[in-house]
Amino acid sequence: MIRGRVLGEVWATRKAPRLAGKKMLLVAETCMLPQGEQPTGRVIVAMDLLDAGRGDEVVVAFGSGARNAEVPGSRDVLVDASVVQIIDGTSTGSTPLISS
Amino acid sequence: MIRGRVLGEVWATRKAPRLAGKKMLLVAETCMLPQGEQPTGRVIVAMDLLDAGRGDEVVVAFGSGARNAEVPGSRDVLVDASVVQIIDGTSTGSTPLISS
Amino acid sequence: MIRGRVLGEVWATRKAPRLAGKKMLLVAETCMLPQGEQPTGRVIVAMDLLDAGRGDEVVVAFGSGARNAEVPGSRDVLVDASVVQIIDGTSTGSTPLISS
Amino acid sequence: MIRGRVLGEVWATRKAPRLAGKKMLLVAETCMLPQGEQPTGRVIVAMDLLDAGRGDEVVVAFGSGARNAEVPGSRDVLVDASVVQIIDGTSTGSTPLISS
Amino acid sequence: MIRGRVLGEVWATRKAPRLAGKKMLLVAETCMLPQGEQPTGRVIVAMDLLDAGRGDEVVVAFGSGARNAEVPGSRDVLVDASVVQIIDGTSTGSTPLISS
Repeated sequence: MIRGRVLGEVWATRKAPRLAGKKMLLVAETCMLPQGEQPTGRVIVAMDLLDAGRGDEVVVAFGSGARNAEVPGSRDVLVDASVVQIIDGTSTGSTPLISS
Repeated sequence: MIRGRVLGEVWATRKAPRLAGKKMLLVAETCMLPQGEQPTGRVIVAMDLLDAGRGDEVVVAFGSGARNAEVPGSRDVLVDASVVQIIDGTSTGSTPLISS
Repeated sequence: MIRGRVLGEVWATRKAPRLAGKKMLLVAETCMLPQGEQPTGRVIVAMDLLDAGRGDEVVVAFGSGARNAEVPGSRDVLVDASVVQIIDGTSTGSTPLISS
Repeated sequence: MIRGRVLGEVWATRKAPRLAGKKMLLVAETCMLPQGEQPTGRVIVAMDLLDAGRGDEVVVAFGSGARNAEVPGSRDVLVDASVVQIIDGTSTGSTPLISS
Repeated sequence: MIRGRVLGEVWATRKAPRLAGKKMLLVAETCMLPQGEQPTGRVIVAMDLLDAGRGDEVVVAFGSGARNAEVPGSRDVLVDASVVQIIDGTSTGSTPLISS
């Protein structure tokens, strides 16, 4: 999974029929650098079943993991990315990335 | 899924037989930076079932998600990327990528 | 799928037994920038069933899509990338990547 | 799989129900450059079944490999990344990356 | 698949039980640029069944392809990357990456 921040919602009228009624979010992937949280520049379109909102920090799962978030064990789900957690906090503290 | 813009169509006469008759698009992945929408430089070849055209902003699904867009639940589809939405708009507003 | 250009063939005598007799190509991924076609620097090793040659522009499929190019519906194929099209041309014309 | 260093834990109360009780870690991917170990900037959220702690160097598996770490052969697991090894050491010695 | 060079072995005592006895290698991904072979900076942890050694140039398969290298058709293998070829040579000659 990756961590990211919700930018907003995507709207479309022309779409694969089985995406009808699905809420789709734009999520900006983030990373933790010495100077703090930064966007990586990668933007993901993820299905949202958790009612995440603009600015929320979330965890996004991909592939079969994302499809299992919608229908466990299903083999015909169309999405490849889903919001699976809305982050409350992390314990990253002041760990340096590389120990010496 | 990722968001991108359609660059045009790909033509080929020599191809895997099961791709015959499939419309294949070149899609330039885009990201949302503070200065606005930008191409990431990554270009994807995606199957199109939605009749997307040059310049359209689209959502592309990958892997089994893309194959399920062609034949739900199928296990023998050859593509690994499909256009699944033609984007009408987004609600990204003026959210800063990183909250302080 | 991605688009790339064939660099040449890979030879190996020590390999997984089920790769015996498979033709493997080095393919340099390319992207379309305002200044034209450019290599991204990423090089893929892909199985070739289409008799592609050095310098050909090709489409490469990944994952189950690539395995289905070898044996449709198979679940025990070893490759994860296959050449699925040899490109004749594209209709990218002069579309700017980002509309204003 | 990739190699990385544990940054800390992720906490969430709103999440996909089947993630309840799973320990989720932030792992910073690392690479080995001539000047030594460096973070690549990519941060992964991975399930942990090995009781890894902040600062541990670990191996993370993705996709079905990660799901098989939780439940072998399962087809409905939600995660797409798991810690599968806590690294004791490596034998990289002084091998130059490119031989001449 | 990708091409890379073996950096060395990874040792771990705390690991997923089903990885016991597996030989795991660090492999530095390489690319072919006009100035010759270069590391991309990406390092992969791959299972090795071919007895590859430090400095060998190898092909690494991912995902189900990698799992099929261990147990063909298996659905419960934990690795997501395997060494599937030890490269003897390539026919890349002097092909320019982009034809004019």
